Amino acid sequence: MGPHPAVAAIRLAVRRVLHDILDECTRNPDERPRNPGEHSRPPAGPGRIPEAPREREPAPLVLVACSGGADSMALASALAFEAPRLGVRAGGVTVDHGLQAGSDLRAAEVTLRLRGLGLDPVEAVAVTVGRDGGPEAAARDARYAALDAAAERHGAAAVLLGHTRDDQAETVLLGLARGSGIRSLSGMAAVSGAAGRYRRPFLRLDRQTARKACMAQSLSVWDDPHNTDPAYTRSRLRHEGLPALEKALGKGVVEALARTAQLSRDDADALDAWAGRAEAGVRDPDGRLECAGLHALPPAVRRRVLRRAAIDAGAPAGSLFARHIEEVDRLITGWRGQGAINLPGRVVARRQGGRLVIRQG
Amino acid sequence: MGPHPAVAAIRLAVRRVLHDILDECTRNPDERPRNPGEHSRPPAGPGRIPEAPREREPAPLVLVACSGGADSMALASALAFEAPRLGVRAGGVTVDHGLQAGSDLRAAEVTLRLRGLGLDPVEAVAVTVGRDGGPEAAARDARYAALDAAAERHGAAAVLLGHTRDDQAETVLLGLARGSGIRSLSGMAAVSGAAGRYRRPFLRLDRQTARKACMAQSLSVWDDPHNTDPAYTRSRLRHEGLPALEKALGKGVVEALARTAQLSRDDADALDAWAGRAEAGVRDPDGRLECAGLHALPPAVRRRVLRRAAIDAGAPAGSLFARHIEEVDRLITGWRGQGAINLPGRVVARRQGGRLVIRQG
Repeated sequence: MGPHPAVAAIRLAVRRVLHDILDECTRNPDERPRNPGEHSRPPAGPGRIPEAPREREPAPLVLVACSGGADSMALASALAFEAPRLGVRAGGVTVDHGLQAGSDLRAAEVTLRLRGLGLDPVEAVAVTVGRDGGPEAAARDARYAALDAAAERHGAAAVLLGHTRDDQAETVLLGLARGSGIRSLSGMAAVSGAAGRYRRPFLRLDRQTARKACMAQSLSVWDDPHNTDPAYTRSRLRHEGLPALEKALGKGVVEALARTAQLSRDDADALDAWAGRAEAGVRDPDGRLECAGLHALPPAVRRRVLRRAAIDAGAPAGSLFARHIEEVDRLITGWRGQGAINLPGRVVARRQGGRLVIRQG
Repeated sequence: MGPHPAVAAIRLAVRRVLHDILDECTRNPDERPRNPGEHSRPPAGPGRIPEAPREREPAPLVLVACSGGADSMALASALAFEAPRLGVRAGGVTVDHGLQAGSDLRAAEVTLRLRGLGLDPVEAVAVTVGRDGGPEAAARDARYAALDAAAERHGAAAVLLGHTRDDQAETVLLGLARGSGIRSLSGMAAVSGAAGRYRRPFLRLDRQTARKACMAQSLSVWDDPHNTDPAYTRSRLRHEGLPALEKALGKGVVEALARTAQLSRDDADALDAWAGRAEAGVRDPDGRLECAGLHALPPAVRRRVLRRAAIDAGAPAGSLFARHIEEVDRLITGWRGQGAINLPGRVVARRQGGRLVIRQG
C-alpha cells in the first residue's frame, strides 16, 4: 500500500525541486543559474547530448524554513523523506519573530519536531522585527535576512519555503489592490533570491493538501494566531475576501489567480527585456533620452523605459507609482510645454529641447 | 452658479469624447482610425503643424445606447447638453431584450424620456436573445448586433455606452476568474468596435457620480432587476464579491482594478505586436514553424505565437485556454517524443522533424 495521496503529492512536489537543485549543482557547481525554472532544463528526448562523467561532489544541503504551521511542517516531512533517497542532506530553520509571548518556547518546540523528522542541522533564529513598511513587511524582511544568514552559515544549496497555491492567490489579490500593473500580479516565483536560493515546491498545491498530509502522518501543527487576526490584510483576504470572491465567481478562483501569476510573470519578464533593449535605442550620444524615439515606442514599453530611468536617477522603486510614470509619460505624449515633474527621492523629470532629462535635485 | 459637481463631471467626460470624435471626423472623414485613444492625437505644443482650412462637413450624429438605468440616463443627459454646443447631432437607441414581461412598454418609456431630453432620432429596437455562451453573453451579442445595425441605419459617427469604472472593475475580476492571462484582465476599451464606433466616456467615473447626476437633474431612472439578481455572476460580484474585497483590501480596490485594466491592455497590445513580428521570423521558407526558433523566444512571446497559429489553423479563440497552449508549448520546451496534441476545433499540433505542424483534421 502506497502513502496517502496527500503525502504522495507533497513528496512528489519536493522530489521535483530536489532534482532541479541537483541538476544545477551538477551542471554548474560554482555558479547556479539565477532563475532556472522547469523549462530551462535541456530536452530529455533524442537530441540530448550525453554528459561526461564528473567528479563526485559533496552532498548538497537543503534547508526548510519552518514556522511549525501545517504548510511548512508538511514540507519538512517531505524533505526528510525524499532527501536521503537522492543523496541530499536536509536541515531546518525556524525563525522566532519575538512578536508574541512565549515565541521562543514555540521556536524551541519546532526545532525538536524538525529533529524528530530526522533533519540535521536544525536551528532556531531569533530576530528583531522593525516597523518599516508595516508589520507584515517588517516581519518578512527580518525573516528573509535571518534565512539568508542561516543559508550562508550552513553553506546550503537552497532553502525551501512552504507557500501554497492559496498563498499565491492571496498575493495576486494583494498585488491587484496596488493597481500598479502586471509585475505586481505575478505573485511569488517558484525560484527566487540570490542565485535562486529560495524554492517554493508547493506553489501548485493547495493548502488543504498540506493539511491532509500532516494529518495522514500524525504531525501536530501550530496555527499561528496572526493567520486569523483581522488586523492583518492577508488574514482578512483569506477568511473574508477570497471566500466571497469564490462564492461569486466559482470554486476555480484560486487556481485562476495562481495561473494569472505565472502568465503575468512571463509577460512582465518579456516586456522588461524589451524595455532594456529599447532604452539603448532611444539615448542620444550623450546618453540623454530622445523624446521622438520614446514617442515611437509602444506605451507599455515606453512606460517601462521611463520607470527604469527614474529608478536609475535615484527614485526608490517602492515609492514610484503608476500615476508618477503616467505624468512623466505626458511630457512625451501630451506635450503642451508643461513644467518639471517631481518624483519620489527628489528626482525631477523635465523636457528640454527634444530630450527628456530625469535626475536628482 | 454652475451645475452640480456630478453633472459637471459627466458633461466634461462626454465633452472630451465628442472632441475626440470631431477631431477624427475632421482629420479623416472617410476612414476613422480604429483605436485612436488620447495618445494618438498630435502634440498641441510648439511643434504642431497648422491645419489647412477644410470644407464644412455635415454635422456628425452621435447615438447614446440607453437602458433607462442611472448610468446611461446620465450619459444621455450629458450628450443632450453638450452635443448642440459642439455642432453635433445627438440621438438615442434603447434595446428591448424581451426577457421580462412588459419590456416593450419599458423600452417605449425610455424613448419618451430620451425625446424629452431633446435627442433626435430616438428609437427602440426589439431583439431576440439566443442561448450561445450563457444568458449574459447571449444578451450582449444581441444588444451589440442591434446597436451596430442602428448605427449603420442612421449613419452615426459613434455610439456612446454608459459603462462606469465600477463596471470596469467587475469586468477585470470576471477576466481574472478565467485565469487566461493579461488580455482578459484588460476589461473594456474606451474605444472599441469596427472603426472605433463604441465610446465609453464614463470609464473613469464611478457609478455613484452617474447616480448623483441623475438625482441632481431630477431624472427618474429604472433599476434593472437583473442587476440585483444573484443568478447572474456579475450581480453576485457587484453586491457580494467586490464589497468583501473592498472590506479586506481597502476602498481603493475599484480604482486599482480599473488601472490594472488600462496597464494590462497596453501590455497585451505590445506583446501581441511582438508575437506578430516574431512569428514571421520563426517560419521556414515553406511557412512551417521552426522549433529551434520558437525555443529561443521568451515564453510570453512564444505562447502568443502558438496561440495565433492554433487560431489560424481553425481553433475557435473562445475555446482555446491557457492549458491548451501550455501543452503545445511542451512540444517545444519539454520535448520527449510525445504524440500529437488535440486542440478545440479539431485542430491538431504535432512536432515533425524540428518543425511544429498545427492544422485541422
